[in-house]
Amino acid sequence: VIGLGAMGAGVGRSLVRAGFTVYGCDVRSASVAAFAADGGTGAASPAELGRHCAIAIVLVVNAKQVDEVLFGHDGCVPAMQRGSLVIASSTIPPAFAEALGERLGEHGMLLLDAPLSGGVARAGDGTLTVMASGEPAAFAAAEPVLDAIAERVYRLGDQPGTGSKVKTINQLLAGVHIAAAAEAIALGIRAGVDPAVLYDVISASAGSSWMFQNRVPHILSGDYTPLSAVNIFVKDLGIVLDTAHALTFPLPVAAAAHQQFLAAAAAGHGAEDDVAVVKVYQALSGIDLPGDAAM
Amino acid sequence: VIGLGAMGAGVGRSLVRAGFTVYGCDVRSASVAAFAADGGTGAASPAELGRHCAIAIVLVVNAKQVDEVLFGHDGCVPAMQRGSLVIASSTIPPAFAEALGERLGEHGMLLLDAPLSGGVARAGDGTLTVMASGEPAAFAAAEPVLDAIAERVYRLGDQPGTGSKVKTINQLLAGVHIAAAAEAIALGIRAGVDPAVLYDVISASAGSSWMFQNRVPHILSGDYTPLSAVNIFVKDLGIVLDTAHALTFPLPVAAAAHQQFLAAAAAGHGAEDDVAVVKVYQALSGIDLPGDAAM
Repeated sequence: VIGLGAMGAGVGRSLVRAGFTVYGCDVRSASVAAFAADGGTGAASPAELGRHCAIAIVLVVNAKQVDEVLFGHDGCVPAMQRGSLVIASSTIPPAFAEALGERLGEHGMLLLDAPLSGGVARAGDGTLTVMASGEPAAFAAAEPVLDAIAERVYRLGDQPGTGSKVKTINQLLAGVHIAAAAEAIALGIRAGVDPAVLYDVISASAGSSWMFQNRVPHILSGDYTPLSAVNIFVKDLGIVLDTAHALTFPLPVAAAAHQQFLAAAAAGHGAEDDVAVVKVYQALSGIDLPGDAAM
Repeated sequence: VIGLGAMGAGVGRSLVRAGFTVYGCDVRSASVAAFAADGGTGAASPAELGRHCAIAIVLVVNAKQVDEVLFGHDGCVPAMQRGSLVIASSTIPPAFAEALGERLGEHGMLLLDAPLSGGVARAGDGTLTVMASGEPAAFAAAEPVLDAIAERVYRLGDQPGTGSKVKTINQLLAGVHIAAAAEAIALGIRAGVDPAVLYDVISASAGSSWMFQNRVPHILSGDYTPLSAVNIFVKDLGIVLDTAHALTFPLPVAAAAHQQFLAAAAAGHGAEDDVAVVKVYQALSGIDLPGDAAM
């Protein structure tokens, strides 16, 4: 496991629990030490990890980091044997996933384009959803690993890229739904409606979404500890818009949501929970958010 | 029941089934005849209905029509006795609902501000959700009627206006979610992903919403028969934006979604199902939508 952030650490623990010998590496030595305490084996670099492993799951933040840990200084690919498998589970541009499959093929290696959905809690439980595409040989090699980390594996095609396309479109909706939830709760507060009542009524009505039900409780409790951060959606909606831009395809709703996440990051909330996008509306209108009195 | 459109006809049938003597009126005589065939009693005008009824449920399209059927030529209010109840269940601006409560009070009448959620199917089943506010006496008088038409009644306060505020905010989310679903499916088609696969994967993922699950099947089947029309969201997101405008409150995400419904109406799809907003993306990009080959 390369990248022991919240998702990578959870995936690593699921693999340890399933009986695999699991090497993990991360630029943060504290994350590697925590993983070793959980039964994993620390590796000093992706290259060291590659010397021991036939399968590398990559769970770093973005495509640039994926490139670095695979092909950069002390990257794992030159250290891995021909026939080895890379499972790319970061959210990356579909075009990057397609090119990555070709580059690994030149090293005689396989790629499974396999973004994840389900969040940190399900990463730790081994009950993620995987949106995967790649050659049948890549699926065959990945199967025991996917069984250990996922409740549901969608096989979306024989070529890398399709998995990341589906994940990209999922992130379009997820990002718009978080921004809309924040906008709706903020308007409700401005109009004098109790936000807890709004949450109850709308959760049971046609205006509900998975994100509304999952994120609005963070607003109600005033707890913006990041499970997934504003900066993740600055990045992911950026991938959505860049992907559409390359296809000359307009996305006015996603673009409006992206601007709200950018505004939240501009106002200093980039590292807070993604639903801190509601603080953009607060900064403009002066509404009181739950928990403000205690701050 | 004043207004025997899809929602009003369903509510009327639920009341007949519950044993009430139910008068119904509508400007379309065919709707009145159909209601009479279902066990209701036709009324020639709101005034005639008012002479027979102590409770009037209003389910017309917008605030202008509510005003007309209550206070206009042959309106029901002058024909109803003091102490009678109006249940306003159309989606109307919260400020209109507040003023309506005062105007009916001047006639010695009660108002329950009681917008509905749940759609046409649940109107016919008597399993709607009601978002209601009004005086305790209005709730007491309305209770047997609400029991017959609704599975769930939210009591949101003692003043008309709060019910419509909550409904308005629900419509903000519902409208944004439909536009986002259309945008996401259209991008998927442009990127070469099977939209049926997108529907399956995203319905089980964090990008899902009630509207995504309910409306995307209409795109997949190519059936834009209106259950709720594009024009309804041109109106309802208009109410959302006007309500926020009156509060000097910005709604960039809802505004972007509203523009997409306006674009769909401009392109001639106003009377089609609301998810025909996807045809805006088709008109711009030339993507094939499911069912096109058969058209």
